[in-house]
This record gives sequence, structure tokens and C-alpha cells, in this order.
Amino acid sequence: MSYETLAASLRSAMERQDHDAIRLLLSELPTADIAEFVRTEQPATSLQLLNYLPIDARADVFGYLEPSEQLEIAKDLDDLRLGQLLARMNADEGADLFNLLHPARQDAILRGMAKEEREELRRLASYAEGTAGAIMTSDYVVVPADLTAREALDQIRLTAPDAETIYQIYVLDEQQRIAGTLSLRELILAPPHSRIEALMTHEVVSASVDTPQEEVAKLIARYDILALPITNGGDRLVGIVTYDDAMDVAEAEATEDMHKGATIGKLEGGLRSASLLTLYRKRVGWLVLLAFANIFSGAGIAYFEDTISAYIVLVFFFPLLMGSGGNAGAQAATLMVRGLAVGDVRFRDWGWLLGKELLVAGALGLTMGLAIASLGWLRGGPDIALVVALSMLVIVMIGSLIGMSLPFLLNRLNLDPATASAPLVTTIADASGVLVYFGIATAILGLPSPS
Amino acid sequence: MSYETLAASLRSAMERQDHDAIRLLLSELPTADIAEFVRTEQPATSLQLLNYLPIDARADVFGYLEPSEQLEIAKDLDDLRLGQLLARMNADEGADLFNLLHPARQDAILRGMAKEEREELRRLASYAEGTAGAIMTSDYVVVPADLTAREALDQIRLTAPDAETIYQIYVLDEQQRIAGTLSLRELILAPPHSRIEALMTHEVVSASVDTPQEEVAKLIARYDILALPITNGGDRLVGIVTYDDAMDVAEAEATEDMHKGATIGKLEGGLRSASLLTLYRKRVGWLVLLAFANIFSGAGIAYFEDTISAYIVLVFFFPLLMGSGGNAGAQAATLMVRGLAVGDVRFRDWGWLLGKELLVAGALGLTMGLAIASLGWLRGGPDIALVVALSMLVIVMIGSLIGMSLPFLLNRLNLDPATASAPLVTTIADASGVLVYFGIATAILGLPSPS
Repeated sequence: MSYETLAASLRSAMERQDHDAIRLLLSELPTADIAEFVRTEQPATSLQLLNYLPIDARADVFGYLEPSEQLEIAKDLDDLRLGQLLARMNADEGADLFNLLHPARQDAILRGMAKEEREELRRLASYAEGTAGAIMTSDYVVVPADLTAREALDQIRLTAPDAETIYQIYVLDEQQRIAGTLSLRELILAPPHSRIEALMTHEVVSASVDTPQEEVAKLIARYDILALPITNGGDRLVGIVTYDDAMDVAEAEATEDMHKGATIGKLEGGLRSASLLTLYRKRVGWLVLLAFANIFSGAGIAYFEDTISAYIVLVFFFPLLMGSGGNAGAQAATLMVRGLAVGDVRFRDWGWLLGKELLVAGALGLTMGLAIASLGWLRGGPDIALVVALSMLVIVMIGSLIGMSLPFLLNRLNLDPATASAPLVTTIADASGVLVYFGIATAILGLPSPS
Repeated sequence: MSYETLAASLRSAMERQDHDAIRLLLSELPTADIAEFVRTEQPATSLQLLNYLPIDARADVFGYLEPSEQLEIAKDLDDLRLGQLLARMNADEGADLFNLLHPARQDAILRGMAKEEREELRRLASYAEGTAGAIMTSDYVVVPADLTAREALDQIRLTAPDAETIYQIYVLDEQQRIAGTLSLRELILAPPHSRIEALMTHEVVSASVDTPQEEVAKLIARYDILALPITNGGDRLVGIVTYDDAMDVAEAEATEDMHKGATIGKLEGGLRSASLLTLYRKRVGWLVLLAFANIFSGAGIAYFEDTISAYIVLVFFFPLLMGSGGNAGAQAATLMVRGLAVGDVRFRDWGWLLGKELLVAGALGLTMGLAIASLGWLRGGPDIALVVALSMLVIVMIGSLIGMSLPFLLNRLNLDPATASAPLVTTIADASGVLVYFGIATAILGLPSPS
């Protein structure tokens, strides 16, 4: 049955107050779909529905909601019930929600918690945004190295209900350092009497609590692992990041890079939920900056005023030439920025990539130069044709080189290469394009140099 | 130990031909790192190294390589050994590599295979690129509904070595339709004598072989599942897509959208491995198209030649105004395109998003209009200040509306909304901006309308 059908049945069962039907439907709906239902119904209905779920299922559903949606529901829960929910949520998600609460409410909730829960929540909530610590969970499975496979499986049966994943299992030494790891698959396939010590892999890929989240996501993707162990900077295991969180990070990272590529600041929660003021603030900065940067182009034009007055036909080709340089540059910058982000190219490749780009941009510039030459001939004769064709070649090549080099330059300055946005590249390419175009025009058309 | 250290030891062991050291190091290195080593060494060394690995491990390493790298090594293998490798690789990856081989070589390899292997390979190789069929594997785990948990676990122990994942288990009815699913976690935690029938979830999220890969990736992310079952269009289970393939699809999809956003065509394998001709062909199309579209802006300028001649100061503000409209439009388009791609906004939201955008763009336009007014006053007096401020407001709003609407319009025309690239939006915004700017100038400065 589709989600829509099940959701309609659930809605009708809730109207009829048919408790059995509601419980049956809830047991059949995937958690993500229950969350979708909670998200789209009225707050009162959502709250009522959540009450039908056992506390663990309720915590799972809560984990699927956006932080803003969680806060909305949290408002209607008393401190004790919210505290129970926080304690049962995946530890990383619980800590995120906790961080969003008012300090007074945080205190009230902490007071209602058992000491161990309280310290755990405090610890996880303390990691800086964007680090591995902020998305890791402390609910992982550990087994001693000297157990047999069967004994380990029995132990996991006892401890697993609270773990976020049981598919990757860790072995610690006396100092709580990671001594090895094995997957549940390996454990199950192993002869029941073999020792964990003999089954585990000793070389364990790990990250520390300070590692940026995108690095964590890259490691998980590179090694195709279900969970990455996180250490406290030393070798001590303090948490794991699971693949589903890595997928979310990778998606958020791509979104941020795309937004940056169009000069939009980091937007929490997406376009839909962003307020007018947020959208304004995330967009206005670069717009104003680039507008003023465009003054250079304007000044370039003003400098060549005499050339323009003498050959007003040159202005006709202005948008076409400027646009092409910017577009070619935006292509080159986007190729570089994305290549760097996914690890396809590296900073040390810049030299030969620039050489390659020169050849490609040369070919592009020649094609476009030839295309525009005929138009130049038609509107202004052979001299104008030569001016626009030559300008096109040079402008496209300069634009491409700017686009290719800017990400590297930004990295050298310890800035994010993704800041090499299409609009920024276009603006820089435009300013140099004005000089090239009117410079070439002045030279070829035999005009006196501007005074 | 870091990858670099281990790789250096491996290199030195290979130079010394120290078989034991090589085998030991290979047993400690994660598969992804062995693949990295194979990728970066000379072909002869790579081939030699692969020979040290048992066939299954060799197939795993092969699966981590790019198709072009696989082909390079495949050249040096005879048909029989390549066939063995194909049969042991993950079914989806083997089929991909098979599809890249020369038809004569495909035939030779198929002849050397057992009938079942041959049919399996043929079937998987036949699905269209970009569909779920092309990335699914047929190595999944199925158990009968009437087994107990313990019996099922024993059966999985027997069948698992070949399965791509054993963490999601499927139950089929007599017609091979999916009757239910359960995770290995649920199976392990269940009382040993409980029946699979009672443990499994009946509502199973699935897709068909024709489902686009990005839909599959979205389902896997939405439901946080390790594998999505794939049906043959009816209800019959024919394969599964695992989460790691979904991560790869999501990354490739984001790359494609980013490239599209800068008018670059779909690039297989990234910037690094792309040939000069490929790069040229993927970039030249839109560049030429947009250059000619810019003729409209040029024609607009030519139309207002008299206005420009009378007030040459207007040209100074030209790049600034045009650039701002295009930049605001690129922001709006990028927000929309990415919002649609990640499912944050939907096509039916267009109405209220447009209203929201009107308000944001109005605020942006006002800010920028005020900023530019002072500059206008300085360079041309109060009239010019009014012209440029008013033009800025209108141009930014028009640019934003174009950026917000174009993705929807493209979708209506059954085109990919990601085609609403920054350069396309900028070009359209430029043409309308010329009319707005010089139109307002003509009106306010009291010039006669252009003839």
C-alpha cells in the first residue's frame, strides 16, 4: 500500500478514535512515514498520535523530524516527558535538540535525568557544530577480545537494543583505545568457537571528535563502512558516526557548495523554512560587494569613452563578449570546485590542469571568435569583425584561467575554494574583459589612446 | 599506521619480492587502500600485486577502481581470468565493466562462463544506464517465512558468503513476490524460536528496475535503510540496491546538477580523466547559445543608441546594474533548483515561494538601489541617481523572479529544472535589464523615445 493510502486510513482512524486500528497502522508504517504524517498534520493531532507510540518508537519518529519541527512539538511537552524523549533519541540527535532549547528548560530537563544520562547529554551537546563530535553517537557495541564468536554474539544480544548500529563491533584495550574492529557479518560467518582476537581487523580507520564532518563523510564513502569510530583526539574511542548521518552530511555539504557557487550564505534547513530576513541576510552581502566590484568595469568603460563615442557599434557586442568570458570562467570554476570537493582533483594538480584548461579554452575561444566574426562583419565591416573575434578569443581564455585559478588562490588564502562562485568569477572576468575589448579596439581601429 | 606508511612498506616489499611481507600487508590494508595503491602504481606493478590476492579479494579491489582503470588492467588479463573476475565482482559492478568491453571480448568471456553466471551477467548488463536495474545486485539474502529465527540464521550462514549484504533479509511468497523483510539486527535480537513470519515487516518499501537511480537514492536516504529491494515492474524481487551505491548516486547527481548550473554537460568520470575533446564538447554548446542570446541585449543597447550618446555616463553604470540583476537571479534559481533536488520544496509550492521571493527581492533591490544612488549622484547628479536607483530595484526584482520561475517553467516543459543555470538566468535577466534601464532613463531624463 502506498503512503497516501495508509496516511488516509490513519487519519480516518484518528477521527473515529479507533485505538486498535491506529496501533495496527502505526506498527505497519515505516518510521519515516510516521514522521511525515506527524509533520503534515495539525500540532494537536501530531501530539495525540505520538502518544499512541511506545516511548522508543516515539523517540525514533522524533529523530526523523527537522529541528524546527521538534521544537514545535517540544513546546507542548512537559519537562519530564521531553527529558525521557531526549534520553531515548539517538544520542547525537538528542544532543542537537537539547542545544536548541532555552537554557532554563535545559536545566530543568537535566535535573530530571539520571546522573549518567545527564553527563552523556552534556558531553555530546558540547561539541562544536560541524565537527565529528556533533554527529557522533555514544551508543556503539564493544566486545572484549578474548571472547569467542558465540559468546560475543550472546553479549551483543544483551547490549544491542540501545546501540545505534550493531553491524560494526569494536574491540578496546585496557586504556579504552581501539584495538580492532569486526563486522557483524564476519562474526556470524565465523566458526562459533573462534576468538574475537583472531577475527578482528587491527588496522582501524578512525577520526577524532574535531575532524570536520565532511572529512568523516568522505572516509565513510571511501571505505564503504557502516560506521566510523571517533576518538577523543588521542586513541580513546568515544563515539561512532553512522553511514546515514554521513549521507546527510554529504547532502548538506553539496547544498552549501551549490549555494556558495551562487553567492548565497549557509542556510540552515533550506529554502522552505527560511525566514524572509534570513534569506535577505544570506543574499545581500555578496550582491552589494559584487555590485561595487562592477564599478571597475564601469570605470574601464568610462576610460574608453572616446573609443565608444567614435564606434558606438562596439557597445552592441559588449554584452555578448562580457557574458561569454564570464560563462566560460564559471564553467572552469565549477569544474574545479566540484572536482576538489569530491576528491577527483587535488591542489597539487593545478599546474597541469591549467595547461589542459588553456588548450580547451583556446579551442572554445576560437569557436566563439569565428562565430561572432561573421556578426561583426555584418554590423561593422572587416575591422570590427577582427576586433570582436580577437577579443572573444582573449576574453574566453582569460575568463577560463580566472575560473580555474581562483579556487586554488582562495585555498592558498585559507578560504573555501567554493567561494569562487560564478558571479565572482564573472565580475572579475568582466573587468578584465572591458580592458581587453576596448584595448584591442583602440589598437586595431587606429584610435588615439584614451587620455 | 597511515595509508602512506603502509603503502611505502608495500612498495618496498614488492621491490624485495618479499612474498610473506606482501601478503601480511595486504591482509592489513583496507580494500579501498589496496585499490588506491593499484591505482597509483605502474600497470605492471598493479597487475603483479593483484596476483597476490585471492580471487575474491581481487574482485573486491577491482570494484573500487574507476571503469577506465578497470579497463586498463583488463587489457592485460586473458579472457578466462577476466571472466573469473567478472563472476566474483559485485554483480552490478561486474555488469558495468562487462558493458564496457569490446563485443568480441564479451562473447569470448560469456563462452567461458557457467550457464547460470552467463545468464545473470547478461540480464544485469541489459538494464539502461541511470535506472535502478543498472546498479542493483542479485546477491541478496532470502529466507522462507516458516523458519524460526535460529533456523534462518543458520541458513544465512550457509548462503551469506556471496551476498552483498546480509543485514537486510527478504521473505518471498510462492510467486517470488516480496512478502516481508527484516533486518539482521531484528533477527539476532529475536527469541531463537520465534517464526520469521511473526518477526518480519509486511509493508516493504521497494522500487522497480526502471526507477531512476536518484529516486532510489532518495528512498534509501528517506527510510534510512541499508538496501532497497528492486522488483521487475511487477512484484517479483529481482535485486537490491545497497546504501553505498546510493551514496555514489547522490554524489554523482549533485555533481551533475552543479555542472548543469554552470552550463556544463554530463561528464563521466570527472575533470581529471576527461579528455580535451570531451571537455570542449561538454562546454561549447551552451557557451555559443548564450553568446547568441546576448545579441538581444546588444540589440537593446543599439535601440537606445541616442539615449546613450546623450548621456554617456549611463554606460558607466551598465555593468553594475546588469551584473546585479543576473546575480540576484542566479541566487534565486540556485535556491530553487537545489531545493527541488533535495525534496525541500515541491513544484506546487511555486505560488507562495514566488510571493516570498518578491518580498526578499524587493528588500534586496531597495538596499542596492540606495547604495548605488549615492554613486549616481556623484557621477551624474540627482536625475542620474534616480534613474540608477529605480533601475536597480526593478532589475533585481525581475532577475529574482526569472530565477525563481525558470526552474518551474522548465519542469512544465519536461526539462530538467537544473538547466536553469546561473549563466542562462543572467543572460535572460540582462536582456530585460537593458530595456528597463534605458527605458527608465529615457522616461526620467525627458529624452525623446528612440526612433
